[in-house]
Amino acid sequence: MNKLDISMNVVRRLPKYHGCLAELMEKGEKRVSSKELGSLTGFTSSQIRQDLNNFGGFGKQGYGYNVETLYNNVSEILGLNNFHPTIIIGAGNVGRAIANYQGFRDYCIDIKAIFDVNKDIIGKEINKVKIFSPDDMDEIIEKEKISIAIITTPKNVASKVADRLFSFKSIKGIWNFAPVDIKATHDVFVENVSLIESLYVLSFMIENKK
Amino acid sequence: MNKLDISMNVVRRLPKYHGCLAELMEKGEKRVSSKELGSLTGFTSSQIRQDLNNFGGFGKQGYGYNVETLYNNVSEILGLNNFHPTIIIGAGNVGRAIANYQGFRDYCIDIKAIFDVNKDIIGKEINKVKIFSPDDMDEIIEKEKISIAIITTPKNVASKVADRLFSFKSIKGIWNFAPVDIKATHDVFVENVSLIESLYVLSFMIENKK
Repeated sequence: MNKLDISMNVVRRLPKYHGCLAELMEKGEKRVSSKELGSLTGFTSSQIRQDLNNFGGFGKQGYGYNVETLYNNVSEILGLNNFHPTIIIGAGNVGRAIANYQGFRDYCIDIKAIFDVNKDIIGKEINKVKIFSPDDMDEIIEKEKISIAIITTPKNVASKVADRLFSFKSIKGIWNFAPVDIKATHDVFVENVSLIESLYVLSFMIENKK
Repeated sequence: MNKLDISMNVVRRLPKYHGCLAELMEKGEKRVSSKELGSLTGFTSSQIRQDLNNFGGFGKQGYGYNVETLYNNVSEILGLNNFHPTIIIGAGNVGRAIANYQGFRDYCIDIKAIFDVNKDIIGKEINKVKIFSPDDMDEIIEKEKISIAIITTPKNVASKVADRLFSFKSIKGIWNFAPVDIKATHDVFVENVSLIESLYVLSFMIENKK
């Protein structure tokens, strides 16, 4: 089965299984049933079995899953063992927070460069990563074979930045934090993180709980 | 109709309509059809009409929607015209980024205090908001009638912080950025923002595009 045929709903549940298995490992648990995974993640056990069957199962009837093996399998499915050469575009609040947050850099991203138009900070470093002028972007993307670009620019330039990124063959994914939906292309997956939308959902729920 | 009976899927689409209408207003557009809103947001026009009908419609057949009126209506539905007294717990990278990001503070949140255990920063300010010791939390929550708490602590303390917050009557919502799922209670809505899960989805998609 082509993994890209798997629905995004399944894909979005995988990180939850991963986090849950990591916690079970920390607690020293050796095995877990789909029912237990269900009560920990809030999904049904049949949903979990079905999701994991997309990738070959991994469980044994009557035993459940070996925690460490399943954790390693899910890690591999998610591609967490590979570090993707990454750039951050925009060294504002969000760009700096991402560069400084070690949790992201422990897995799957290797931040090679940060870009910003502000001349006062070009040449400086954030958490040992150098800030460059956007003029150097083409050269660095090609030299470092950058596959992930994190957009943390203001809203009004984010789409232009994305269009420029789409022209590079090595770019496979964009993690977009600018408050504008960037559409994926055939070659580039875009994960839009809209914090403002998340805040508005919170606002709605509070407003209507009164 | 009780607005809390509306499905979360509808609620999560409302901020997208809001953003889209804001852009149309910036462009000086006066009216918009559900079909146009559909092509801008990626939803079907019948979906949009159905969603808005939950709140009373707002459109006229053959005319569509008045952009400004609909924008104002959606803003009101989302509760964006009310500022909620808010605290941030954790003045690390994410906490600082949120306090510094004016975009959040223009709408619906009014950050009254930031809390951190680090004695070196207690008493200092981030974007004009003072950092306090967690010892002062009870007093400030009660005095300021805090309704939103933003959790940006490390993972290992986030659940304990949430349990403490649940005990205050004024707290209506938690915006959680710690990489652990906090469960909502009857009285408190929890919006979990898991950036690590978002990154893992990106990683999966890239891994499987190779």
